[in-house]
Amino acid sequence: MTSQHDDWRELGQQLRVDSVRSSSAAGSGHPTSSMSAADLMAVLMSTYLHYDFDAPDDPRNDHLIFSKGHASPLLYSMYKAAGAISDDEMLTFRQFGSRIEGHPTPILPWVDVATGSLGQGLPISVGVALAGKRLDRLPYRVWCLCGDSERAEGSMWEAFEHAGFHKLDNLTAIIDVNRLGQTGETMHGWDLGAYRRRAEAFGWKAIEIDGHDVAAIDGAFAEAIATTGQPSVIIARTEKGHGVAAVSDQPGKHGKPIEDEQAAIEELGGRRDIHVEVAKPDFEGTPHEFPTVELTLPSYEPGTKEATRKAFGDALVALGKARGDVVAVDGEVGNSTYTELFANELPDRFFQVYIAEQQMIATSVGFQVRKWKPFAATFAAFLARAYDFVRMAAVSRANIALAGSHAGVSIGEDGPSQMALEDLASFRAIHGSTVLYPSDANQTAALVPQMAEREGIVFMRTTREKTPILYAPGEDFPIGGARVVKRTDADAVTLIGAGITLHTALDAAERLAGEGIAARVIDLYSVKPIDEQTVRAAGRETGAIITVEDHWAEGGIGDAVLAALAEEQPHPVVVKLAVSEMPGSGTPDELLAAAGIDGEHIAAAARDLVGRTGEQRRTPTEVGSAGRE
Amino acid sequence: MTSQHDDWRELGQQLRVDSVRSSSAAGSGHPTSSMSAADLMAVLMSTYLHYDFDAPDDPRNDHLIFSKGHASPLLYSMYKAAGAISDDEMLTFRQFGSRIEGHPTPILPWVDVATGSLGQGLPISVGVALAGKRLDRLPYRVWCLCGDSERAEGSMWEAFEHAGFHKLDNLTAIIDVNRLGQTGETMHGWDLGAYRRRAEAFGWKAIEIDGHDVAAIDGAFAEAIATTGQPSVIIARTEKGHGVAAVSDQPGKHGKPIEDEQAAIEELGGRRDIHVEVAKPDFEGTPHEFPTVELTLPSYEPGTKEATRKAFGDALVALGKARGDVVAVDGEVGNSTYTELFANELPDRFFQVYIAEQQMIATSVGFQVRKWKPFAATFAAFLARAYDFVRMAAVSRANIALAGSHAGVSIGEDGPSQMALEDLASFRAIHGSTVLYPSDANQTAALVPQMAEREGIVFMRTTREKTPILYAPGEDFPIGGARVVKRTDADAVTLIGAGITLHTALDAAERLAGEGIAARVIDLYSVKPIDEQTVRAAGRETGAIITVEDHWAEGGIGDAVLAALAEEQPHPVVVKLAVSEMPGSGTPDELLAAAGIDGEHIAAAARDLVGRTGEQRRTPTEVGSAGRE
Repeated sequence: MTSQHDDWRELGQQLRVDSVRSSSAAGSGHPTSSMSAADLMAVLMSTYLHYDFDAPDDPRNDHLIFSKGHASPLLYSMYKAAGAISDDEMLTFRQFGSRIEGHPTPILPWVDVATGSLGQGLPISVGVALAGKRLDRLPYRVWCLCGDSERAEGSMWEAFEHAGFHKLDNLTAIIDVNRLGQTGETMHGWDLGAYRRRAEAFGWKAIEIDGHDVAAIDGAFAEAIATTGQPSVIIARTEKGHGVAAVSDQPGKHGKPIEDEQAAIEELGGRRDIHVEVAKPDFEGTPHEFPTVELTLPSYEPGTKEATRKAFGDALVALGKARGDVVAVDGEVGNSTYTELFANELPDRFFQVYIAEQQMIATSVGFQVRKWKPFAATFAAFLARAYDFVRMAAVSRANIALAGSHAGVSIGEDGPSQMALEDLASFRAIHGSTVLYPSDANQTAALVPQMAEREGIVFMRTTREKTPILYAPGEDFPIGGARVVKRTDADAVTLIGAGITLHTALDAAERLAGEGIAARVIDLYSVKPIDEQTVRAAGRETGAIITVEDHWAEGGIGDAVLAALAEEQPHPVVVKLAVSEMPGSGTPDELLAAAGIDGEHIAAAARDLVGRTGEQRRTPTEVGSAGRE
Repeated sequence: MTSQHDDWRELGQQLRVDSVRSSSAAGSGHPTSSMSAADLMAVLMSTYLHYDFDAPDDPRNDHLIFSKGHASPLLYSMYKAAGAISDDEMLTFRQFGSRIEGHPTPILPWVDVATGSLGQGLPISVGVALAGKRLDRLPYRVWCLCGDSERAEGSMWEAFEHAGFHKLDNLTAIIDVNRLGQTGETMHGWDLGAYRRRAEAFGWKAIEIDGHDVAAIDGAFAEAIATTGQPSVIIARTEKGHGVAAVSDQPGKHGKPIEDEQAAIEELGGRRDIHVEVAKPDFEGTPHEFPTVELTLPSYEPGTKEATRKAFGDALVALGKARGDVVAVDGEVGNSTYTELFANELPDRFFQVYIAEQQMIATSVGFQVRKWKPFAATFAAFLARAYDFVRMAAVSRANIALAGSHAGVSIGEDGPSQMALEDLASFRAIHGSTVLYPSDANQTAALVPQMAEREGIVFMRTTREKTPILYAPGEDFPIGGARVVKRTDADAVTLIGAGITLHTALDAAERLAGEGIAARVIDLYSVKPIDEQTVRAAGRETGAIITVEDHWAEGGIGDAVLAALAEEQPHPVVVKLAVSEMPGSGTPDELLAAAGIDGEHIAAAARDLVGRTGEQRRTPTEVGSAGRE
């Protein structure tokens, strides 16, 4: 064993040296946080990891996720040692245009998910491990390197709870207890027992070791692999900056290159060029496939009423039957979001995450790492709980579908804590996102399959209340489109709504028609991407637009419409109707009226606006007059 | 004791009956989740709670927070029993205009914070308890009623960790283990030991009881009060819907009125009208006051450079010295946000929350319950972790100040996981929020004291990089204002930026000036509220606006400007420059250029825009021509 122990130690030193070198080359980065975990990773990659770097998409590969993403120099050093990247490329760390970014992202084919916002790698690892057990049904393992500081994030305990609950013995977390956070000592310092007691309480096998003793590390990994019926965590006492006296276990050395690079390399025994032949997957097998039937979307009779949340649930079942890769994830509100229909019909692909929205998104991100198509659902308001996970999912280039029910004041009596009134804004501001807000059950059904096809974060906002079926089954509602629901040759104003407010806008249009005012009505079911052409045409042709949303005034439908019109000349007058005061309880109708977004208030606003723009339109040289096409 | 036990039992039954009555009157609500905890609350309010309902602002009062906010019928029944509200008012539950809302909000003077988004009441209780120990220095107690379902939220474990760490023996959590969540059994059902082991691992005193045995409840509260040096948790086995056979411990009875109200009331022994004389605070004392000096804001020499994050830190120290009620809270990045300056100078009012952003916001909300003025700081990107807490803080009408550093691509090498690019959008969409984005250190210093004066959620976005000092010390920068930094009589275009992009806009203006194009430059340091007048005047006078932001295109500066211009006629042409592709690593300059928001790209966009609008402006009947004033 001595020679193997020496090999591990040598590799550990190489990983340290390379972490020092890359961060010195960059002039920034986290060498000390890399050095603490170097021995752990040296033993892992030499002896326990099974991964084919030439075939990162091989479904049999293990998964190695750096929850402490700032230890990226260590990860890149491992990639170099494995021969996946060259020394030269490693030294492009943090340079513009390099894929060796400050924190790992899936621009690199061996990186499953972006990390760097602490406390996310472990919850996502739980998702990957769950996919291994219950979806792929393959015996790959998931290894997750965690920092000690990030144990303060509640999301880590959501992960501990769920991994314990699901007895994920294919998951091993490695906690690099180097005692020091960014500004000082962590809550628990080197009290390994504090971590052990917590882990054991959550049903994990906990293994305490000296994280610089390669024999102990070897024993810990062997014990982790031998553990059945529960996840395992290796709690390793380490030194930040281990191996270089000037920084080792010293405060104030977080996130900066080593001052004297050459001296540090010398102290670590100099540069090495050890190549590690990482073991390839050692079993045969392909991911489990679920049986499918042809897609038959649900349909709803025009003139009747149904809630879009129910249509979402119905359509998700239909999609799940037609696509074996579709899975549903819910935060213990499946009878509200109607994922319970999926749970009943396709229980093998339904995942109850209880009331843990961060873990819900992390599970979804983990599933899509393994090419599954997750649909995660809860009240739209509670998706706010996982906003940072959604933000990072976008950095991960993850493909996940989210459904948020119970949007806006129209939920009624439950009051503001349950009302999503900022979800359109927050999801619009996610990079590459799609934001859908269907107004009708058949439209919802048409959109659900598109959600699975679409890349990136796809959010659908659904409505609690039953609303009239406007469209015939089978009509086409492409993402990025809008539907002109009502139109005449003499429209004096355009009303733009979606979801519940399309219906109040239609009510307003009817009231206005009775007074001789023709109103165009647009169903903006795709808030992002928005159908700029339809919006602009309405602006040109009517000169007056009223946007109506069951949402705060900022960042939702109104702002999306204004953005589409930003460069238009002549420019229509746009009046935004939105919720402006904190609502209380009440019936949906009372609350819509109080917010000024029911038919009566929209009609009043339209009347006022037409009074203003109509006058302008009668003066030929004024704006808007040339608009009619 | 028997008579007292009977009294408690009778009161428990009354609380149940009244929960049934109010939810039946409303036609919705959560009677069953109220009934499980009725005995616990009956004993608490009769014997252990110290609270003067006539003086809810008495700083000596205990605090009772319903983390399971959906048990509001129980809370309102308690208010009725205490004589705080009438039976008639209780029966207005969930009616439009009533303050007896679906979930508790501080519209009621006895409610500290809004709950209803699960997993928030306990973290906020930790904040209140911490205020009791370290700020007020008064021996009031904090009682927090928790659900068992909400234990799945990671934020609950952040709270457990922090209460244990700070040894908050003035805090008692009461877990109503009624086994049933919304859709089914919780992860741990009636396994009280699962909760006990976790609580003990986190350093809490755990007390397991039968939650319907008033003697056991009494003993548990006595034990909790007697516990010193650690927080206590009463883990009570209860039945959902206890006392009414038709719903007791039955699935499918969550969140709906009892079907047969009269039979249920009869089974519970009928209506009662017990009045409880809740004990008033039994000690003398006033909140601790910290010594103050006169306010002397930091100042920076025009022409030098400083980072606005540093100016924030400097100004916060100055404000803290001048206002004894100001406290700082940080998520273990104080050397990045510069709250470390406050920690060094005013350590008694600095709170290290480690890497637990939800607890950071909850602590702040708890502090402001007790009238302290919290400033919480971390990287702006990581505030996304606590978005639901911020959303709920707005429902709580909380007054908290937040500072987010390291915004945008201009942070450079660290890469996208650390870059806030959606924070302006997400914070603009918080009800009643204020969003500041200073461009200069003196301006930052001028804004910080205003943050403490302002109501609601006040967010300041700061910049990592040092930027030139533009303004003289002592200049006035009111919230809601904007500063025209550059202006001529012949401006052909307006450039609007803030923070880092004000500087790139000024660079662009200089480039344009060399080509004979006069550009107005506006510093939009107050993104919300926005200075509509200045923006509109610029639109009228130049007919062409370019907004520039180190943020995604949705919901930030560009959309705020467009919203201010929505009803303008004639309307300027507005071009939004923002980050559109996922950034990687690089220098700040490289990344600003790649995003098209550096001086060169802004100048190019302005040149193009002036080419278009200039042509229009030469045609007298066209839009924009009449704009010059």
